[in-house]
Amino acid sequence: MLPPPKEPVAIDELREEWASLDITERVAAFERLPRDAAAVFFQGLSTPEQAELVLAMPQGERYLWLRLLAPDDQADLLQQVDPEERAGLLELLDGTTRKEVTALLAYQEDEAGGLMSPRFARVRPDMTVEEAISYLRRQSRHLETIYYVYVLDPSQRLLGVVSFRELLSAPAGRPVSSIMKEDVITVPESLDQEAVAHLFRQHAVIALPVVDENGRMQGIVTSDDIVDVLQEEATEDIQKIGGMEALDTPYLRTSLLEMVRKRGGWLTFLFFGGSLTASAMGYFEDELSKAVVLALFLPLIIASGGNAGAQATTLVIRAMALGEVGMGDWWRVVRREFVSGVALGLLLASVAMAWVVVWELLLHLYGEHFLRVGMTVAASLVGVVTWGTLAGSTLPFFLRRLGLDPASASAPFVATLVDVVGVVIYFTVARWVLSGTLL
Amino acid sequence: MLPPPKEPVAIDELREEWASLDITERVAAFERLPRDAAAVFFQGLSTPEQAELVLAMPQGERYLWLRLLAPDDQADLLQQVDPEERAGLLELLDGTTRKEVTALLAYQEDEAGGLMSPRFARVRPDMTVEEAISYLRRQSRHLETIYYVYVLDPSQRLLGVVSFRELLSAPAGRPVSSIMKEDVITVPESLDQEAVAHLFRQHAVIALPVVDENGRMQGIVTSDDIVDVLQEEATEDIQKIGGMEALDTPYLRTSLLEMVRKRGGWLTFLFFGGSLTASAMGYFEDELSKAVVLALFLPLIIASGGNAGAQATTLVIRAMALGEVGMGDWWRVVRREFVSGVALGLLLASVAMAWVVVWELLLHLYGEHFLRVGMTVAASLVGVVTWGTLAGSTLPFFLRRLGLDPASASAPFVATLVDVVGVVIYFTVARWVLSGTLL
Repeated sequence: MLPPPKEPVAIDELREEWASLDITERVAAFERLPRDAAAVFFQGLSTPEQAELVLAMPQGERYLWLRLLAPDDQADLLQQVDPEERAGLLELLDGTTRKEVTALLAYQEDEAGGLMSPRFARVRPDMTVEEAISYLRRQSRHLETIYYVYVLDPSQRLLGVVSFRELLSAPAGRPVSSIMKEDVITVPESLDQEAVAHLFRQHAVIALPVVDENGRMQGIVTSDDIVDVLQEEATEDIQKIGGMEALDTPYLRTSLLEMVRKRGGWLTFLFFGGSLTASAMGYFEDELSKAVVLALFLPLIIASGGNAGAQATTLVIRAMALGEVGMGDWWRVVRREFVSGVALGLLLASVAMAWVVVWELLLHLYGEHFLRVGMTVAASLVGVVTWGTLAGSTLPFFLRRLGLDPASASAPFVATLVDVVGVVIYFTVARWVLSGTLL
Repeated sequence: MLPPPKEPVAIDELREEWASLDITERVAAFERLPRDAAAVFFQGLSTPEQAELVLAMPQGERYLWLRLLAPDDQADLLQQVDPEERAGLLELLDGTTRKEVTALLAYQEDEAGGLMSPRFARVRPDMTVEEAISYLRRQSRHLETIYYVYVLDPSQRLLGVVSFRELLSAPAGRPVSSIMKEDVITVPESLDQEAVAHLFRQHAVIALPVVDENGRMQGIVTSDDIVDVLQEEATEDIQKIGGMEALDTPYLRTSLLEMVRKRGGWLTFLFFGGSLTASAMGYFEDELSKAVVLALFLPLIIASGGNAGAQATTLVIRAMALGEVGMGDWWRVVRREFVSGVALGLLLASVAMAWVVVWELLLHLYGEHFLRVGMTVAASLVGVVTWGTLAGSTLPFFLRRLGLDPASASAPFVATLVDVVGVVIYFTVARWVLSGTLL
């Protein structure tokens, strides 16, 4: 007797539950999707999820799902799995596809070559429009897109491009070479994916051709791949700005151990940074014990510097990622941020001064020297906020010059840097302004 | 005699210089581009830049550049200009386009209707494949893309979709209705652009159809528009996470006044938040004056809580924006973050304890009660880091429940919240541990 049939699962329901299922539950639930829904669902998964799912399936089924993907997506999936598993999966593909995928595996996942599909529409320049259309019509089943048609010479060098739409509306007897656009924007095969995304934004196109160093066309990158790249890159930057290593997996799918590792490293580093603040304060222990009122304002003042620094570093990191600001702009940025920093410092200084005066008049909180205390706080704020702004805006340039990721100039990192100097600024100002009175 | 001809400008050179030019210089430089390069350059500009440039041109030239854009981009441009100017620019368009653009202007810029193009490829279900192809061939000049062909009934209701590639490889005599896919993913016209982007990511498509509430097709959104949307949304979130209002313009193009306004508001708000920390410390002034050594560790401890909070809030904000975490997951997230927080707190506590012991043994920095001081610091760190992690992870949920943007739970905001409670935790622990010795 057959076992009772399992109830089918709805695709929307599975999407909602997916993140909270472990891999065994995922396979079980996936098997219960109707076959056509399963195909849609599988293609909508992220590459690491696809890889995990395929590997957890019985050998006989793997082929079915792997074959659903375009060669570039197959290559991405294979890049996620262990080398031993990889060979087994490659065996599942037919000869032509295996060759394509193997070629793609030679590229880094985050460069243009790793994003591209080799299945683009190509024609020869001497074909007529009509010949090109009927040729493409026969080929179209095997192509990723026929949106753009690339005109190549016999050695695969890219001569021009024509959109299929233009081909359709051109006179049938004209040679393709007479209607193609020769001034083509191309992507070098080893260009970083962030730079590729930048080209897509700049030109608002659906696809771009990838060429090797000899101008031979290797494939196309399409804008749906770029959508994924942009999300990934933004997520990485955001997590780094938050003061941690970027997670490589979705939040709820990251193990607690991995999470603690990626956060704990930076927290410990920042803790040691913060201990410099403690040392700096030790140097002013004398002032502190004479005027405890100084300690009250300390967190407020150094936090203001840290906040101003967080704003500046965030702005600069993002402007760099968008290509709005390059290394050559550093001096312009520093000048802008200096002026902003002084303005913001003066703003906070007047707020603080008003604050001290109002509370003194209402509740006599700060004693007879309240005006001097207020001046100390106000003057320190101008210094600390200006310093925070400058540190926050220059650190990303500095990291980039060192070949590091500017996004590592996270809000907490800048705040820690600013804290040490903030303590020194504050107590130095206090020595000047309060000497002879409180100190 | 003619004036001497101006030297032409190279497009790459202009791209590099663009951000640093004012509008008069921009117009002058733009006029010196060769005509075809100017068209490419114009289309690559952001909408606000296009609007500014068009308005700065002589009346007679405006038409030339406006006409270069597709109706959806024209509508975006018109949405950027003052209502008085808008009417004048609309007049420049031909009748059909004007009607299309006016219809698009009724949509919000950040909803599906505001992103879509009305120039999609449409056929009737009873056309044969051959008829459809030759019909589209005649129409193609006026279409944004023929990548997907939409099958509509006489009242414009969407019946199905077929890719042009499928059309080309299908038998010529079959009716379109027999090869179309009926299970179409559609976008409601008022869907928020972030949700539209989410659909594109989920389905990895080049275009999606937009329908009104009666299922009548209104237009298509293409993935190149989504690329812009994603960049915009990520930029907004990143700037908010950095503790400021989102700039609406590129960093270098934002006036200093605007910049100070958007940063100053949050800095002042955070300053008032920080003043609560000062008040909390005032409450422990007695302890502070008895044991100044406590003040030394204070910035370090509250900064650690703030850093842990910044990590947690950043993770949750991004996971929400990516749709990985929804309101229903809050309890799971809180449990995860509680465990992470305790683990991270214990990690920092052991680092701190080791630190105090080592320095005491080397330099006798902390006096005879150094073990108790170390215990105070360690225990406070566990409390403060756990609290920071919990506050950082729940605040985005809380803001979203209130209908606010979760990204406003910025790193500096969380740090400020954590500081107040951090002070209370620290001094409360100190009272317990040090009572009878230092206090």
